[in-house]
Amino acid sequence: MARTDIIVHGMTCGHCVNAVTEELKTIDGVQDVQIDLHEGGDSPVVITSEGELNPQAVVDAVDEAGYQVVG
Amino acid sequence: MARTDIIVHGMTCGHCVNAVTEELKTIDGVQDVQIDLHEGGDSPVVITSEGELNPQAVVDAVDEAGYQVVG
Repeated sequence: MARTDIIVHGMTCGHCVNAVTEELKTIDGVQDVQIDLHEGGDSPVVITSEGELNPQAVVDAVDEAGYQVVG
Repeated sequence: MARTDIIVHGMTCGHCVNAVTEELKTIDGVQDVQIDLHEGGDSPVVITSEGELNPQAVVDAVDEAGYQVVG
């Protein structure tokens, strides 16, 4: 079990949270995604997965959802 | 052809706009929905329909999407 902590910028509502959560869950091995929404600002995201995640895959998934990893 | 102008409060992003648009388009006769998003504030919405719309149906649709008609 691995934990990946990132900060995602720009989510403003529950729809945004759902979009990011669903995109991250398409990454192989991802079991859970928890997002602490800070509306319009920088939101902490905790990803739980079976093994270590490829950081680029995480960045790409967030980008695909329309947001940016800033930390 | 009828035009209905309302103000919807609380939409913050394109996902919110899509949710309101799709819900309004479920109303019988609605042909087009144009939303001028004012993030987190009061956004003008113009609904084009074949005949006059029941105002309660419009209010209910916006409520169903999770937002509030304020004007």
